Amino acid sequence: MNHKAKGTQGERVLVKAFNEAGWSCIRAAGSGSSPYPAPDLLAGNAIRRVAIECKVTAAKKKYLSKEEISQLQQFSHQFGAEAWIGIRFSRQPWYFLHLEDLEDTGKSLAVSQNMAKLKGISLSEFFHLTE
Amino acid sequence: MNHKAKGTQGERVLVKAFNEAGWSCIRAAGSGSSPYPAPDLLAGNAIRRVAIECKVTAAKKKYLSKEEISQLQQFSHQFGAEAWIGIRFSRQPWYFLHLEDLEDTGKSLAVSQNMAKLKGISLSEFFHLTE
Repeated sequence: MNHKAKGTQGERVLVKAFNEAGWSCIRAAGSGSSPYPAPDLLAGNAIRRVAIECKVTAAKKKYLSKEEISQLQQFSHQFGAEAWIGIRFSRQPWYFLHLEDLEDTGKSLAVSQNMAKLKGISLSEFFHLTE
Repeated sequence: MNHKAKGTQGERVLVKAFNEAGWSCIRAAGSGSSPYPAPDLLAGNAIRRVAIECKVTAAKKKYLSKEEISQLQQFSHQFGAEAWIGIRFSRQPWYFLHLEDLEDTGKSLAVSQNMAKLKGISLSEFFHLTE
C-alpha cells in the first residue's frame, strides 16, 4: 500500500471510531489540494466540534509545514471547532496533540514519536475530554 | 461533462462562495459511498453550522431517496448542524430548502423547479439567515 493509501485508510479507521462513539464525522475531499483551508477530518457531537489534520508516518519524527498548521487554525477558528493533530507512527496507536504541543524547528513544526507519547492523548481519552 | 462531474463542479462553486462569505466549508470525501452518514457539504461560521445535500439536475423535478434524507437528518442532529437541500436546475441559480419543504411522493421525496422557486431561498438569503 502506498503512502497516500495508508493515510486514507488511517483516516477511515478514525471515521469509523468516531461514528461508533456517537459522533458525526467526515473526511474532506481533496484536502491539501483544495484552494481553501480544509482539515482531513471534521467531527462533532452534541458538545464538541473538532477539526483534525491526520498524519500516518513510517518515520520517527513528522514535520508539518507552518502553512498547513496556519490553514488548520484558520479553518477551525472560522468554523468554531477545536484544532487537533492526529498522528500514527508505525506499530503505535493514534495520538492526538494540541497545536501548541508541536515543536517549532524554525522552518516547520514537528512531532516525534517520543513527544507524541509524552504530550499526546489516546483516542479514548480524546473522546472523553470535556473542554 | 458527465453528471457526476457537474455535481462536483457545482459543489466546488458553493465551497468558493461560502469561503468568500467568510465561512469555513468542506466537501465530504466519498459522500454517498461512505458506510456512515455524510452530507455533501459541511460549512460553519461563528454563529451557524450547516450540512447540505447538493443536487445538480437537468430534469424539472428531482427525486431524493428517503434513506438519503434520513441520513442527512441523522448526521446533522448528531453533529449539531442545520440540515439543508441545495439544488440547481438547468439555467437556474442555487436554491436552498428545508427538509420539510420537500414533497413526499410516498416512495421518495421530491423537489420541482417551481417548488424550489416558491419555497427555496437564494444563496445570498441563505448567508443572511439568522436562525
